[in-house]
This record gives sequence, C-alpha cells and structure tokens, in this order.
Amino acid sequence: MIKTIDLNSDLGESFGQWRMGNDEEILGIVSSANVACGFHAGDPVGILQTLKFAQENDVAIGAHVSYPDLAGFGRRNMDIASHELTADVIYQIGALQGLAAAAGTKVSYVKPHGALYNTIVNNEYQAIAVIEGILAIDPNLALVGLAGSNILKLAQERGLRTIAEAFADRAYTSQGELVSRRETGSVLHDADLVAQRMLQLVTEGGIESIDGKFTPIQADSICVHGDTPGAVEMAKQVKTVLQQAGITIRPFIHKYGSH
Amino acid sequence: MIKTIDLNSDLGESFGQWRMGNDEEILGIVSSANVACGFHAGDPVGILQTLKFAQENDVAIGAHVSYPDLAGFGRRNMDIASHELTADVIYQIGALQGLAAAAGTKVSYVKPHGALYNTIVNNEYQAIAVIEGILAIDPNLALVGLAGSNILKLAQERGLRTIAEAFADRAYTSQGELVSRRETGSVLHDADLVAQRMLQLVTEGGIESIDGKFTPIQADSICVHGDTPGAVEMAKQVKTVLQQAGITIRPFIHKYGSH
Amino acid sequence: MIKTIDLNSDLGESFGQWRMGNDEEILGIVSSANVACGFHAGDPVGILQTLKFAQENDVAIGAHVSYPDLAGFGRRNMDIASHELTADVIYQIGALQGLAAAAGTKVSYVKPHGALYNTIVNNEYQAIAVIEGILAIDPNLALVGLAGSNILKLAQERGLRTIAEAFADRAYTSQGELVSRRETGSVLHDADLVAQRMLQLVTEGGIESIDGKFTPIQADSICVHGDTPGAVEMAKQVKTVLQQAGITIRPFIHKYGSH
Amino acid sequence: MIKTIDLNSDLGESFGQWRMGNDEEILGIVSSANVACGFHAGDPVGILQTLKFAQENDVAIGAHVSYPDLAGFGRRNMDIASHELTADVIYQIGALQGLAAAAGTKVSYVKPHGALYNTIVNNEYQAIAVIEGILAIDPNLALVGLAGSNILKLAQERGLRTIAEAFADRAYTSQGELVSRRETGSVLHDADLVAQRMLQLVTEGGIESIDGKFTPIQADSICVHGDTPGAVEMAKQVKTVLQQAGITIRPFIHKYGSH
Repeated sequence: MIKTIDLNSDLGESFGQWRMGNDEEILGIVSSANVACGFHAGDPVGILQTLKFAQENDVAIGAHVSYPDLAGFGRRNMDIASHELTADVIYQIGALQGLAAAAGTKVSYVKPHGALYNTIVNNEYQAIAVIEGILAIDPNLALVGLAGSNILKLAQERGLRTIAEAFADRAYTSQGELVSRRETGSVLHDADLVAQRMLQLVTEGGIESIDGKFTPIQADSICVHGDTPGAVEMAKQVKTVLQQAGITIRPFIHKYGSH
Repeated sequence: MIKTIDLNSDLGESFGQWRMGNDEEILGIVSSANVACGFHAGDPVGILQTLKFAQENDVAIGAHVSYPDLAGFGRRNMDIASHELTADVIYQIGALQGLAAAAGTKVSYVKPHGALYNTIVNNEYQAIAVIEGILAIDPNLALVGLAGSNILKLAQERGLRTIAEAFADRAYTSQGELVSRRETGSVLHDADLVAQRMLQLVTEGGIESIDGKFTPIQADSICVHGDTPGAVEMAKQVKTVLQQAGITIRPFIHKYGSH
Repeated sequence: MIKTIDLNSDLGESFGQWRMGNDEEILGIVSSANVACGFHAGDPVGILQTLKFAQENDVAIGAHVSYPDLAGFGRRNMDIASHELTADVIYQIGALQGLAAAAGTKVSYVKPHGALYNTIVNNEYQAIAVIEGILAIDPNLALVGLAGSNILKLAQERGLRTIAEAFADRAYTSQGELVSRRETGSVLHDADLVAQRMLQLVTEGGIESIDGKFTPIQADSICVHGDTPGAVEMAKQVKTVLQQAGITIRPFIHKYGSH
Repeated sequence: MIKTIDLNSDLGESFGQWRMGNDEEILGIVSSANVACGFHAGDPVGILQTLKFAQENDVAIGAHVSYPDLAGFGRRNMDIASHELTADVIYQIGALQGLAAAAGTKVSYVKPHGALYNTIVNNEYQAIAVIEGILAIDPNLALVGLAGSNILKLAQERGLRTIAEAFADRAYTSQGELVSRRETGSVLHDADLVAQRMLQLVTEGGIESIDGKFTPIQADSICVHGDTPGAVEMAKQVKTVLQQAGITIRPFIHKYGSH
C-alpha cells in the first residue's frame, strides 16, 4: 500500500504594498494552500495572484478564514457573537470562491486562522459557529483542524468532512497536544529533525513527545510554513525526506476521493 | 401583450450598529435588490439578513459593488488601477454569492454603486475592469447600467447581458441624460408626478425632459429609493400606479428567460 | 454647601453616511461629552462637528477610547497585548486632541468605551495599559471609570486623577455593582424613577439596590444616553429633577479645580 | 558661510505584522522623518517605536498625512471633499502629536503622502483643504511641498511656513518639474550620480535637467528613500558626499530658527 500525506501552508498573506511570504516558491512544495480571505491578510489582487499560482501548480485551495482584525493579523482573540462569526465565515469563503473561480480553480476546504484556530479547539460556541458557516455555504467543503481536537468531532457530528492536521515544527506533549509556545522547546528549528519527525508521523502514526514518549497522532495533513527563507528550506526538507521514503505528497481532499 | 417592468432599490446598507434604510419594507415593494457587498456598506450579518428577506419575497439579487471606501460610502471617485478594480469586483460578487447561497437564493446581476456607477459611464478603463471582473467570476451575471450609456454597449460587446436602468426621481435632459444633481430641478420630490412619469416611461418608452420635450428612454428597470420614509412612499406610489395600469412588476432578469 | 454633579454622555458616534444619536440636542443637556475617536465609531468630519457643538455649549470633552473594532462598535472583547492597547489609546487621544484644538476646545478626560470599559474593571493588564497610555500622552487627563471599581484605584496609585461614574438607567446589586444586562430588571426604562434615583444618589450618596437595600455609591458623574428619543427624554428628566432640587450640573473636571 | 541641508525620508510605514523599510537604520542617516499616521500605513505600536528611534537620533518629525486608503497605500487619487480632507489631516496630525508626546518628541512639520502630495501640486481645492487643516490644529507646523510648486505659495499666503523639497533620485525637466515616472530615465539608480547631483543642488542651487541644461531648484530639503537596501545605500552616499564637501545635515526646521 502506498502511503500519502498532504502538506499545507498559509498563503496569500500579503496586503497592498506589504509583502509576506514567497507564495510562488512555497506553491512548488506544498499540496494544499490555506489562502487568506481579506480579514487578517490578503487583498483581492494579491489573493487572485496566489490562486493563479496555486492553479498552475495543481495545489488544493482552502479558505483561511479569520476574525476581522487586519491590524492584529487575526492573532488576537475576539469575543464575537456566534451569528456574527457564522456570517463572517460565509462572507470570507464566498469571496475566496469568487476569486478562485476567476483563477480557474475552486475552494476545497476551510482552515480557520490564528486566534480563531486556537479558540475553536476549546470554545464550542465559536466552533459550532464556524461549522454552521461552512454548512450554510457549501457542505462539501472539508474542515481542517488540530489533530485530536474536539472541533473535528463537532464537525463530523454535523456532517462535515474533516482533516486532522499536525504541525511540522511544533513539539507535542505525551497527550498529543501542542506544547504551548510559551514553553522552551515548543518550536523546533532543526530542519533535519523536523523532517525525520514527520517521516515517523506518516510511517508510524505518531511522534516522540517533548518528554520522550512515542505519542500517537492521527494526521491527514502536515502544516509547514513559508514566511521566512528558513521556513521554506524546512518545508523542502520535509517534502524531500517523505518522498525519498516513497511517500506521495498530495492534497488531503483525496482522502475523500474525487468529487 | 402584457407590459412588465422591474423595480430595483439599494439595500443591505446598514453597517454594524448603524442602521440605514428599511430593507424589510422595501423588499415588499421592489422586484430586484441591489445588495451592498461590504466595500461601501454592509457587514456580513446584515447582508445575510437582507438576503433572507429578499429570498422570502422572491426578489432578485444584485451585487452592489463599490470602490473600497466605507468612510465615504463609495461616493468618492478613486483612481484605482484596472487590475485592482477587477479583483475588487470579483471579491465582492463572490462574498455576496456566498451569503446568498446561505440564504437560499443567488446573485443574478451586478450593479456598480455610487461613484463607481457614475465613473464607468464615461471612464472606459474602469468600465472594462468591472466587465472583466464579472466575466471572470460568472459570465451569466447581468450588468445593470445607466440607460443610454456606453457601459452597456461595452458589456454587450464582451458578451454580458445588460439591463438599462432609469431613475424614478431624476430629471432628464432632452438627450436622455440625467440632469446633474447640481442643477435646480434635477431631483423630483412629488410622488404622484414621479409615478406618472414612470407610467409614461413604461407605456410610451420615454419621458418628458427638463425642457419639456418627449425624450425616448429604453429602460428595463426603474431605480427607486428606500432610505427615507418619503422614498418608501414614492416607491409604493410608483408601483401602485404601474400595477393599476396593468403593468406587471417583476425582476428584469426575466428579460433573458429562465435560467 | 452647594451640591454639584456632572452628567456625561457618549457622542460623536456617527460614521460616514450613518447617523447615530442627536449630538446637538444632547449637548444642550449634559456637562461632559465622551467623544468617539474613530476606533469604534466617529469619522474626523463628524467628530469635529460634535466638538464644535460641545465647545459652543461649554461642555467638557473626553476621549471615548475603544478597541479597534468598527464593525463590532467596540463591544466585542479583544485579547489585545498591553503595548498595543497603550499605543492605541495614545493614538486615539491624540487624534481627538487635534480635532479639539481645531474646534477651539480641549480634551479633559478619558473614558474607555464598551467592551474595553467593562474589561478593565477586572483585567488588570488592560487596565494598566490604558492608564499608561494616558500618562504617556498627558498625565493631566482624568480617567472616568465605574464607581467602586479597581481601575480607579490602579489609576490613582499611578498618579492619575479619577472620576467615579454611575449609570442612570442601570440597577445595582447591594454590593454596589451593576446588575448584569442578562438579568431581568438590569436596565431601567421609567424616566421619573431614574431621575428620583439619581437625586437620591447625589443627595444621599447611594441608591436602592435591586433587592431593596440602600447601597452607598460614591459617584462624581452620571452617565446618561442620547442615542434614542426615549433616552434623550430620560436625560432631560434627570437634569430637571436634579436642578429643581438645587443641584448644579457641571463638568466633573471642576472636582479638581480650575486648570 | 556654512551650507546646510536637510535630508528627509518616509518612515513608520510598517503595519501590523507587515514590515516595510528599516527605520532604525535610516534614522541614523536623515535629519527629518516623515512618519506615517495610520491612513496609508502605520499602526500605533509601530509608529510609536519609530518615533522613539527618531527621538533618540534627534531627528525632526513630520506628519506624513494621506488619503484614507490602507489597501492602496495612499497612492490612489481620491475625490474627497474639502471639509473631509481638512478633518482627516487634523485627525492624523493629532494622532501623531499624541504618539510623539509619548515618545518624548514633537511634530514639527507636515508632508502630504503619495497621491495627496501629487494632487495638491495642481488641485487648489485639496491644497487649501490641507493648509486649512494644518492651520486649524497648529499654525506653527511647517508644510513640506514640491520645490517650485504652487502649494508652497498658497501656504505662505495663508501664513504657513513652508519647506521646498527636491527628490534625490528623480530627473527634472528644464522647467524644474519632475519628469513623469512613466518616462524613461525619470528615476535615477546610480548612487554616485545621485550624490553628485545633490551636491550640485546644494552648492550651486540647481541641477542638470534631463535634456542637459542647468536648472535652478531652490530646495530646503532632499527626500531620500529607505525602503530597499539599495535605497539606504544611496541615502548614505548622498549624506557622505555632502558632508565631505563641508555641508551640514540638519533639520530644515532650523531654517526658521529655534522655536
């Protein structure tokens, strides 16, 4: 049996005159692109350009939906009402669908960004608000969430397809949770080590926790970064090591077959 | 042969805590709703509510696309580059399509708003940028433009369906152009007079110009306002007078048959 | 000894084409105006107009600083970093000082708005961030906060003058805290009752709590609203009853003498 | 007699997570900093940091006021009403004054940014609106404008101090006007050539035009850029060549003596 895995990365995060990341380069590495929708980053011109690059590279498109907070890059938690969050999610997905249509591609999944991503791991109200937004616009969209988190279960109960995600450069506890960024050793910087960990993740279904125990993690996709030269090198290394081990990199949406 | 005409109005123009217009009431009068897309007005929650009302009233939905200028309500001309304008138009239409899907309806046409509406009557660069935006996201969308203006011809040449629009409360020159708002008598306030003029427009294919001459105007739709109590009364009066004369009010998109 | 009290109200909350409140009318009633600074409401043109009205009415000016959240009207809590909040507060006060100078008046105090107001009652980090913002731009500015709350103590410890505020239309617990808006009876709608309660507050130094006990509340200012016709009537009634009892309405900044 | 000249540069143009320019480095080169005010770029935290660097380097501060257009970086002309522009200018200057006070420095001048800078060279309505904004908040602020342009004369007539500015990296016509960016040769890239031209400007009061004629240009300040590594090198080269010729680099506000 051939092993496959998806590599995803956050893209389209430039805004106006401000550049962020090297979308063209990272789109030659990953199989899925989480594209900003204008609420934390991304303006229509820049998003459209990223979507065209993604289409040319046959990379799957996800709506990287966020709280409305350009100044805070969507990284500040907001106590937003459920009906507001649901409508904001729909608006963002719709906008990206429109631009994707113009780029000759389409949106396949939704991945919440930043503070929203973290909040819905624990906040059931906001989690359900996001899920209802996706269901309202297109129930065929998959939801990407943290491997092992409750949001995936909540989404499945409501009929959404889900994708469990691991983070290449993050340490995990022996309970399979992310080590907080505030802790020493929470973020890994050694590209070779990261690549070997991801190989273990795909071939053995788990990784070594921060306290040295093998920890099962069921992941459909691996998140890599592309916003610094070092991050791009790490993403390349992860891909190379996986491919050399015979693992195929392809969009997680293939998990659900063609559609 | 049964005469028909469309009545359209600008809706969804509240923003956050700020109310504008009485969308629920005006949606009981008009057959087509030009719904704000968030660039000059409209937040996702409010837009979604307006779309639900429109769906319940079987009113056709148009994307009321604008320059990005919330503080200026889209009424200030902007020297925006063509590729920026095209992407902005796609983004706005997409966002509205997403919210429309969530409301159980769909976007049938596009009507530029405010300064953009006026600019594209004369500015061919921006006119083509808008047309290309529509074509890129969905060539089945119709474009609403000023009756007699060049934008309609430019759109038709590129394969777009077009809808010519007259303004119920505006005076016209004997060349069929709108009298500038800066001129005395450019805006009409007498609901009975306005209703009679619109009856003449539909039954005779023209109206009396500001200097007293019958002026042919070929219009598929009549724009009425709903942002003041007086405007709502005028809209009702126009509808009543047209219906009493046996004219059917229905969305202009029927011009092109079911689709 | 002559009793005095201040009446304050939130103003300058229109934005672009959207109107909110009747600033001209309410400025004939209150002695202090909490003027929006553009982050939750208020655009420069509208703020400047309100400041001119305030100057004409000899009303004291406060900077009604907020989280940056126009769509949410500053009513959604934000997990903003301290140094961001401090800088946001300075920016808003400075902008209002500039417009006040242009209107021939000046900013005398700062009153946090909406979610920020509520958060700093309990969140010491954000409270100190606000206080440090005020100290950094002008330590002579007073801070308005909820009567009895810790923010006043924190501000005084750091050398800021403080103003304790009561809400005319809110019920209080017997501990002197506001009854949550989620509870029945938390908001009072009877203008006569409200006026009598405020008379008791000023003359006896306390009011009757929701469970019927006299509750001491030390307040330098009373907040009244002006965003609905009913609210304006209530504000007038409060003022009339206080004045008929011989109480002088004047800005709380007189508490600190001339300056 | 000792020759002096001012070097100014645009700073504070980062926004949220997006970096632009190397403010710390350029503040070691220039004598005056045109600091963004939040309308085309700059968030309060970033602006405050730039102002602190400027204070440490004893660099004069100018308010780099703009049209409200973050997405367009203030580079798109806007047909904004005079009273709106005046209020926008006041708001921005006030906000920067507030942050400058917090940084232990102050705003000495105003330099319009981008499209606004270019528009007021020819558009008298907008020019006067800017001038009136400055006069309304603080008539002691100087206005920086294009050397030879009418805006300087309009400002002087209304009592404002003015600073004429030349651009280091731009070609000039023999009438002393900037060669349009659309023309070949309009922007100069050779740091040595640019430095020699600026030396000529300061010592001879003019430079060689694009068609080879000596062209008088009366400039109080030279604008250099810092948004690319090459630009920073060019700025350094200009400074070095001027200093080696015995010219003192200091803020143009010294033109008006201490204040």
